[in-house]
Amino acid sequence: MATAPLSSTLTGVLERLTCAFGRLPGIGAKSAERLAHHILKCPDDEALALALAIQEAKERVRHCLVCFHLTEMGETHCSLCRDSRRDQGLLCVVEQHRDLLALERTNSFSGVYHVLLGRLAPLQGIGPDQLTLEPLAERVASGQIREIILATNPNLEGDSTALLVAKRLAPFEIPITKLARGLASGSQLEFANKEMLSDALAGRSKF
Amino acid sequence: MATAPLSSTLTGVLERLTCAFGRLPGIGAKSAERLAHHILKCPDDEALALALAIQEAKERVRHCLVCFHLTEMGETHCSLCRDSRRDQGLLCVVEQHRDLLALERTNSFSGVYHVLLGRLAPLQGIGPDQLTLEPLAERVASGQIREIILATNPNLEGDSTALLVAKRLAPFEIPITKLARGLASGSQLEFANKEMLSDALAGRSKF
Repeated sequence: MATAPLSSTLTGVLERLTCAFGRLPGIGAKSAERLAHHILKCPDDEALALALAIQEAKERVRHCLVCFHLTEMGETHCSLCRDSRRDQGLLCVVEQHRDLLALERTNSFSGVYHVLLGRLAPLQGIGPDQLTLEPLAERVASGQIREIILATNPNLEGDSTALLVAKRLAPFEIPITKLARGLASGSQLEFANKEMLSDALAGRSKF
Repeated sequence: MATAPLSSTLTGVLERLTCAFGRLPGIGAKSAERLAHHILKCPDDEALALALAIQEAKERVRHCLVCFHLTEMGETHCSLCRDSRRDQGLLCVVEQHRDLLALERTNSFSGVYHVLLGRLAPLQGIGPDQLTLEPLAERVASGQIREIILATNPNLEGDSTALLVAKRLAPFEIPITKLARGLASGSQLEFANKEMLSDALAGRSKF
């Protein structure tokens, strides 16, 4: 029996909205449909707040000229680089902004950061030139940095990125450290994977 | 040691974007953060397409005056109601637009729909008055409908909604049917739950 094709049962606007949601990472076709229908049903101001926030983010968010963390248009330095209470001699190198935010949430670091804006991933075409490695080297060359903490992700790509950074910064002869690895706090030893246990053994310290 | 509070490490714009994503259904704090950072990283046109689609959806999408399916501003009837190839005497009653879309995807229904815009849910304050029950009754009273198919969800709320609709439409003395229930096609009998098996037994038909 003849029925209209699916596309004609969706209005064009709704279809565009579903497609736009579907392009977001981790949002499948079903979720995109659910989100699009939520937008139709929710109060106008809630939906428009999201639209406005997206536009604002694209228009107003810039990178800090020093550390490449996020800052707003019109501000060359981010709030962390501007903060005189922070230790400008202790530099923590992270892959991306979200790593910085995770570290900040711990409230246990009072130094400053450098965001590489990525990690080495040759298969995805991300080499040293795609990272903010040279600005980092220039920053270290300026002489204010006392210690560099490599806080890349504990995986293959993160490790090779750390190695790259360490090699590039070696000529400056400044102490370079990396984050400790071992048992995850709160986890159970019997369920720890081999890598975690090896790290925990290799990194054991005096009791 | 004194560190800046978390909020000052996020720009206000990014914070607003993360909050706006976090208000969507099924998007937790972590996902909202991931989506917000995706928006910052993705090409401008991709992000702005989403913002525009949201605005358009709120501005342009309306309900069809006949069946309450979605239609665009300036069109009183939806594409299904306008389609002369569809059987205007066969009326399928669904709870929400997404149910209609799921049925349309099967390509096995060539009649028209009526969207109730919800289901009975007294605990959430949704009673008969919140549904499009009276417009449905008026539509049936007009005399064009030959059969009414109740396609509410196969659960408690869907069943009570179906009962409500059936009671309201009983005076018109038009055949009312409901969707079949039984084993899910492609499933395995041994893993079917009790309700599914009971339905399959009760609804058994001649071989």
